[in-house]
Amino acid sequence: MTLPEPSARAFVPFVSVANMMALIHHIGLERMLVELADAIEADFRRWPLFDKTPRVAAHSPDGVIELMPTSDGTQYGFKYVNGHPLNTRDGLQTVTAFGLLADVDTGYPTLLSEMTVLTALRTAAMSAMAARHLAPRDARVMAMIGNGAQSEFQCHAFKSVCGVEEVRLYDIDADATAKAVRNLAGSGLRVIPCATPEDAVEGAQIVTTCTADKQCATILTDNMVGAGVHINAIGGDCPGKTELHRDILLRSDIFVEYPPQTRVEGEIQALPDDHPVTELWQVIEGQATGRRDPRQITLFDSVGFAVEDFSALRYVREKLRGTDFYDRLDLLADPDDPRDLFGMLQRARPAP
Amino acid sequence: MTLPEPSARAFVPFVSVANMMALIHHIGLERMLVELADAIEADFRRWPLFDKTPRVAAHSPDGVIELMPTSDGTQYGFKYVNGHPLNTRDGLQTVTAFGLLADVDTGYPTLLSEMTVLTALRTAAMSAMAARHLAPRDARVMAMIGNGAQSEFQCHAFKSVCGVEEVRLYDIDADATAKAVRNLAGSGLRVIPCATPEDAVEGAQIVTTCTADKQCATILTDNMVGAGVHINAIGGDCPGKTELHRDILLRSDIFVEYPPQTRVEGEIQALPDDHPVTELWQVIEGQATGRRDPRQITLFDSVGFAVEDFSALRYVREKLRGTDFYDRLDLLADPDDPRDLFGMLQRARPAP
Repeated sequence: MTLPEPSARAFVPFVSVANMMALIHHIGLERMLVELADAIEADFRRWPLFDKTPRVAAHSPDGVIELMPTSDGTQYGFKYVNGHPLNTRDGLQTVTAFGLLADVDTGYPTLLSEMTVLTALRTAAMSAMAARHLAPRDARVMAMIGNGAQSEFQCHAFKSVCGVEEVRLYDIDADATAKAVRNLAGSGLRVIPCATPEDAVEGAQIVTTCTADKQCATILTDNMVGAGVHINAIGGDCPGKTELHRDILLRSDIFVEYPPQTRVEGEIQALPDDHPVTELWQVIEGQATGRRDPRQITLFDSVGFAVEDFSALRYVREKLRGTDFYDRLDLLADPDDPRDLFGMLQRARPAP
Repeated sequence: MTLPEPSARAFVPFVSVANMMALIHHIGLERMLVELADAIEADFRRWPLFDKTPRVAAHSPDGVIELMPTSDGTQYGFKYVNGHPLNTRDGLQTVTAFGLLADVDTGYPTLLSEMTVLTALRTAAMSAMAARHLAPRDARVMAMIGNGAQSEFQCHAFKSVCGVEEVRLYDIDADATAKAVRNLAGSGLRVIPCATPEDAVEGAQIVTTCTADKQCATILTDNMVGAGVHINAIGGDCPGKTELHRDILLRSDIFVEYPPQTRVEGEIQALPDDHPVTELWQVIEGQATGRRDPRQITLFDSVGFAVEDFSALRYVREKLRGTDFYDRLDLLADPDDPRDLFGMLQRARPAP
């Protein structure tokens, strides 16, 4: 007998790494960064609506594996993500990720996607979206401290979302800086490799720090941060991992995604639990003040929150319509009669 | 230019529904149930080793979406599973699921698999494994109350693992019973459709209850359960959903997978929090007594625990070796230089 084809409901659209890269080139990197920033901002505007489950972490000596679920009541999303700083020794990524969207009413998955590449874009879009609300309006120069896998995405996002024209690159490893310089050739940005972090922050109105060591390090010391600067701190994102000197934190107005998570994972883990912070969504919604003074130091203490991944997955799902940048994955059993799973299995028996 | 192929590390083996069914037929259903029961039992023997994170549930008016992670310190696994009782109205499954294994040292996924079909097998294997330790040794007759998607798997597992020869089927919907009778023709079991639950339990040494309504129901009343019977209660598996009359619980010695979860989700949610229960792994390991008396009523209050899914995924991954019952999924970005994710994206740009 011929096997009936599984119905459309049994298939889940799957975006592979190759298809994600094709989709990015199809949309255009900078347009996608702008649209992602807008998508995330739109979800931050309805922040109270989201189910903000803490991420579920499995720690091991060499790293962590996390599940980051959230829901807006209509759609459910989660991301699987690992963080293993020693991986690069073996030629592996520090961070890999994939994500899923599902329909809350039925529990059926509606999208499975790679998120190693997508997370790089959403993180950059998130940073630039926050800076749109916090950085000086005329900021045109950004220092980029740490020139690893995330750095070029940050530079492109700040160019397309915030109008940055010059990026000043520094990394303790000069090869990383050289790689970023190569990759940013033709980006339209003025790209200045710097030999010291002091050189990199010279004249910069925005300072982005993105280093990956799992230890408390002070990439940025107090005397390097002048009045009026916006600091976009990405690298401090788990317990024991920070990048900024405590004195910088004390001089800054601090903005965060979700205080219960940031107090554990962010730069502010170095501060008392009641140190005042402002939730970014409240600034966006006009319920709290962002930048109020040209000499103020603003700090976005970014750790990455599930809502941002949810926004990115929804954006990708929307953009897939009418394209062929996905495969159809036979992930869900679909018996003709839902009670007859066994019959479906029996009918799949190969002919003897 | 030609794009370099992603390396082997970038691909995750994926078992589709079609391949899972092919694998089951390749191994043989009953042999696979026996081997799964052994695999789960082997993991129960090292129970204290497992990271027993509570499942992470997102509840909605019509159902629940859950993530069930666990780890033995070497491998990490999680299952995505939904429970939406109203789904069958629309021709959808009440439960769909998929699962993932990953390497704890690197965080890299090593298997993605459908788990709708696999969960049906692991649940049946788990029930039969528990009964192997708790049911009367000479049990040959089982009542199967509730003839939905799980019922035939239960019957096969109790035949192959416990030596059951006769199954007595009852469901409030006679069509469900007729379906199960059809599906079990040729199984080697004596299959007796029954018009009442009282008829079904007649002469049965094992009573399996597996009904799916999300409500407290008493499928089994006290007078239906005679001395010496083993009850395998599967259907009561979330808050507000039970199948047994409270008086049966009070007459039974109760065995559970993991007390903190079972007290919330299992039949014993109807009992005080300090009602004595025995952990099954302790019986298997000889640290607690299982059946000690031919007149004793034993009750396995099963809710399904992450370790069982972990065992099933590891089993499947082992069985895939040397077969072609999987696809290679391009789920992980794999730049030549881990820090050069952006370069990988640039090189994937289609020729103009």
